[in-house]
Amino acid sequence: MFIELDLQSETPIYAQLVDQIVEGIASGALKPGDPLPSIRNLSEDLGINLHTVNKAYNLLKQEGFLQVHRKKGVIVQPDGMPGVTEEFEEKLRQQLRSLAAAAAVRGMSEEAFAQESKSVYRDMIMNRGGEQR
Amino acid sequence: MFIELDLQSETPIYAQLVDQIVEGIASGALKPGDPLPSIRNLSEDLGINLHTVNKAYNLLKQEGFLQVHRKKGVIVQPDGMPGVTEEFEEKLRQQLRSLAAAAAVRGMSEEAFAQESKSVYRDMIMNRGGEQR
Repeated sequence: MFIELDLQSETPIYAQLVDQIVEGIASGALKPGDPLPSIRNLSEDLGINLHTVNKAYNLLKQEGFLQVHRKKGVIVQPDGMPGVTEEFEEKLRQQLRSLAAAAAVRGMSEEAFAQESKSVYRDMIMNRGGEQR
Repeated sequence: MFIELDLQSETPIYAQLVDQIVEGIASGALKPGDPLPSIRNLSEDLGINLHTVNKAYNLLKQEGFLQVHRKKGVIVQPDGMPGVTEEFEEKLRQQLRSLAAAAAVRGMSEEAFAQESKSVYRDMIMNRGGEQR
């Protein structure tokens, strides 16, 4: 698994880690049942704190995207990903609203905003089974 | 200006404040040149820390959405809002990618995601000149 952190970013490290693992699952680079590095290994590989990796893994476990086993370690959810819950829908709309507002104030049209959303989704999925990252 | 904070939310208070002011501008509830409450007044009205309001106002000033004057106080940018810069485009795509990934993993289609983006944008703009909030 290839993780690239931007230490200059406003986005906290744990959130970058969450995003990249979710993108990995979405693109198919990470498949159900695939093992993830242990907390210790990943924190050492990336040169970041154990707690940061732990926080990211815990959030992903709570979301239902990962499972944590004593024996198997951390694996990508093998028993079906969670669906579009009401809670997720609510959170999605809230975050889209924040982005749409900034876009609208800057003069981006509804059509351009929807098009941007579409192309970002498509580009991400297009990585599916794509280049070795 | 009507600000509604959710103290239980994962979203930090300053970010909620930023979002709601930007949404106010996007919907037309706040117009160029409109005055905003002073930092002191807003923090007292909302029962939150001065620094929290200051942080939100500063971010909005940096973005070019607000102006801060000695005499006039804090006002909505009267000299034209900033446009869609490369920096904004980059940030927008990054945040959309994070949302699109979570949506895709949960089985939301590209079309549904784009439609959601479109409807969120439209609902926000439809508040323009709408109910007194």
